Amino acid sequence: MATTTESVSELCAGAKRASRVLATLDTKTKNGALEAIAIALEQRTAEIIEANALDLEAGREAEIGDALLDRLALDERRIAAMAAGVRAIIALPDPVGEVLDGFRRPNGLEIRKVLVPLGVIAVVYEARPNVTIDAAALCLKSGNAVVLRGSSSARHSTAVLAGIAAEAAGAAGVPEAAITLIQGRGREELAELATQTAQIDLIIPRGGEGLKAALAEHATVPVIYAASGNCHVYVDSSAELGMARRIVLNAKVQRPGVCNAAETLLVHRDVAAAFLPEVAQELAQAGVELRGDELACELARPAVLVPANSTDWDTEYLSLTLAVGVVDSLANAIAHIAAHGSGHSEAIVTRDHRAARRFQHEVDAACVYVNASTRFTDGGEFGMGAEIGNSTQKLHARGPIGLRELCSSKYLIEGDGQIRS
Amino acid sequence: MATTTESVSELCAGAKRASRVLATLDTKTKNGALEAIAIALEQRTAEIIEANALDLEAGREAEIGDALLDRLALDERRIAAMAAGVRAIIALPDPVGEVLDGFRRPNGLEIRKVLVPLGVIAVVYEARPNVTIDAAALCLKSGNAVVLRGSSSARHSTAVLAGIAAEAAGAAGVPEAAITLIQGRGREELAELATQTAQIDLIIPRGGEGLKAALAEHATVPVIYAASGNCHVYVDSSAELGMARRIVLNAKVQRPGVCNAAETLLVHRDVAAAFLPEVAQELAQAGVELRGDELACELARPAVLVPANSTDWDTEYLSLTLAVGVVDSLANAIAHIAAHGSGHSEAIVTRDHRAARRFQHEVDAACVYVNASTRFTDGGEFGMGAEIGNSTQKLHARGPIGLRELCSSKYLIEGDGQIRS
Repeated sequence: MATTTESVSELCAGAKRASRVLATLDTKTKNGALEAIAIALEQRTAEIIEANALDLEAGREAEIGDALLDRLALDERRIAAMAAGVRAIIALPDPVGEVLDGFRRPNGLEIRKVLVPLGVIAVVYEARPNVTIDAAALCLKSGNAVVLRGSSSARHSTAVLAGIAAEAAGAAGVPEAAITLIQGRGREELAELATQTAQIDLIIPRGGEGLKAALAEHATVPVIYAASGNCHVYVDSSAELGMARRIVLNAKVQRPGVCNAAETLLVHRDVAAAFLPEVAQELAQAGVELRGDELACELARPAVLVPANSTDWDTEYLSLTLAVGVVDSLANAIAHIAAHGSGHSEAIVTRDHRAARRFQHEVDAACVYVNASTRFTDGGEFGMGAEIGNSTQKLHARGPIGLRELCSSKYLIEGDGQIRS
Repeated sequence: MATTTESVSELCAGAKRASRVLATLDTKTKNGALEAIAIALEQRTAEIIEANALDLEAGREAEIGDALLDRLALDERRIAAMAAGVRAIIALPDPVGEVLDGFRRPNGLEIRKVLVPLGVIAVVYEARPNVTIDAAALCLKSGNAVVLRGSSSARHSTAVLAGIAAEAAGAAGVPEAAITLIQGRGREELAELATQTAQIDLIIPRGGEGLKAALAEHATVPVIYAASGNCHVYVDSSAELGMARRIVLNAKVQRPGVCNAAETLLVHRDVAAAFLPEVAQELAQAGVELRGDELACELARPAVLVPANSTDWDTEYLSLTLAVGVVDSLANAIAHIAAHGSGHSEAIVTRDHRAARRFQHEVDAACVYVNASTRFTDGGEFGMGAEIGNSTQKLHARGPIGLRELCSSKYLIEGDGQIRS
């Protein structure tokens, strides 16, 4: 692995050189390197735990709090899970070379559009050291070099993990600089990374709003921002209310801290009095605080809702809080989502075919659900295997970012001497 | 059409509102609006020529030169060509709703990935007023609103053309703000446009390096830069030399001022003495100035080449000049292209299947040709119909930017009450 005594631009240039080799490796070599990484993680578990202990100690001294300490902590089980994650990526099809489109032109030219690696992908992340291995494995499988930049709070863990991965991949015939770590120079380092347009093809940040803002300010390299999700479940007037209740509960409660969890429930006025009291009670029993608009508060009785204020509709709580609004039409539900949604995952519960179709056509989001929980927006749940995040932007990748989304394409054109007239 | 008395952000917000309507229009309505535009162009030809005369007069006064005056000039023939271009777009399939991928998950969820409009596309261009109509028609067909920003030298022509298009589309059931013109406020206007992240989904610049630099400095909205093309033809040791000569001639001479024309000829040393004298003579007869490296100058004799300097290999001449280099292997040809190419269009002429495969795998460019001229990189030649430019970037669109590249995608997921466990 390239070391941090080199400058950021030297490290990125090394990754770029490695990417040219990586792009030509066959699937067997890439999978062999991934298996070598999985084995090395298992064999060097003690070493990883030792490095992690240094980060945990520093974290406790800095009083970063139990939640962050838990995200940071590695044990045998979590390291085994990382190795299993790498093996799951081995099992996925190699995206490189996939023919997206192909045709023969009247002049005899044969044209194919095929997936190719992007080149060098920088992944910038906070806390969870396992992202080091996830990102390295996904990039390696898709033929990309990766430049990793973890958080300073995980620096010992990240260094050991990246070192193990680069070394194992290197021994298996992949250039070591295919997995390059940069860390230890603070925010200037990030700014330098974000402007290496000649070396870096894409930056994927995985972290909070501060990280995104820092990148938005500095980046000249293309960035795909992992999504924030202000997701809605809309219960239509024709909804099967038992199904609606199960979907709302699941979308809010099953894992509230993630981007595909629901943050707002919209209910058609015609069914609000029948639906709200019971669902409000169930949600309350599950520990959810409900913040309703005036009509929702009224129609949910005897359940008691906290009156919502204007900021609730735009808030991604990521916790056991749910805003509840009553709308008097499908059109107004769609308008509410257009005004407040973040374009991540939106669901309608309905028995009406026309309403389902209209909701799917008109709601502008990465994933639009009919009669299912928003929680399914996930590479694994979509059958794409591991993902490196979810995109709510419209260019290049929208929805889960898996192996194919880490690729670009090129046209291969074959002829027998065609010239243009 | 929205008028320029409103602010840039107001105009963009109007385009955004229009885009929500546009995204739901059926193909028949969109094609009807396009036909209305074509008819209006024909019926209002005199009015267009009158406005164009004002621009031409101003251009002559400002002494912009004959070449620019010719780009600017409109006559009956050119206006008829614009109308024909619109009708060619009517004939293309509507990309919106195309299913890119689809599958059923084990839990019964049915998932489709479909093309949807991006939303609002800003097209910023210089001179040629016909871009106004091309861009408006391509965006309309793909369900996008367009914000047009032409050059000040074409302001009268652009205003009339955009007005005609918006009016005709409006009368045919498309919101008039779907075709919005902003102009008349200089560089600040461009900077304001380039930061409307809430309203504009993509900016496509069509113009010179100055325009690109201005956008690179200001833009927070995603930009797809139309390509510059430093394209190579590599004549392999196994090439059929007659075919190689025809391809080199075509790639350089057929239309030298465009991005897919060849700028450098690389010849394998083993065939240089057999190939260079004749091709150099033919190129010289076609008016091409040849700039050779030392070996090329030597092996081309009796033809006389100008000695190339180090900047020649990186120059997109866009004129009748060609750099000529001799390489001693396929690997060195690929390395030369990696070092100097702009990732646009690269060609190998060879009879060797392995060399062809290796060239296509290892050359990192939007279009990689075997035994054909680089001049085919074009939406029309690829059978995609009209294009709005060629992309050499790796994200979202690489190669010709046609209707499908003006789209994003979304996932439509249908279930019968699935929740995540």
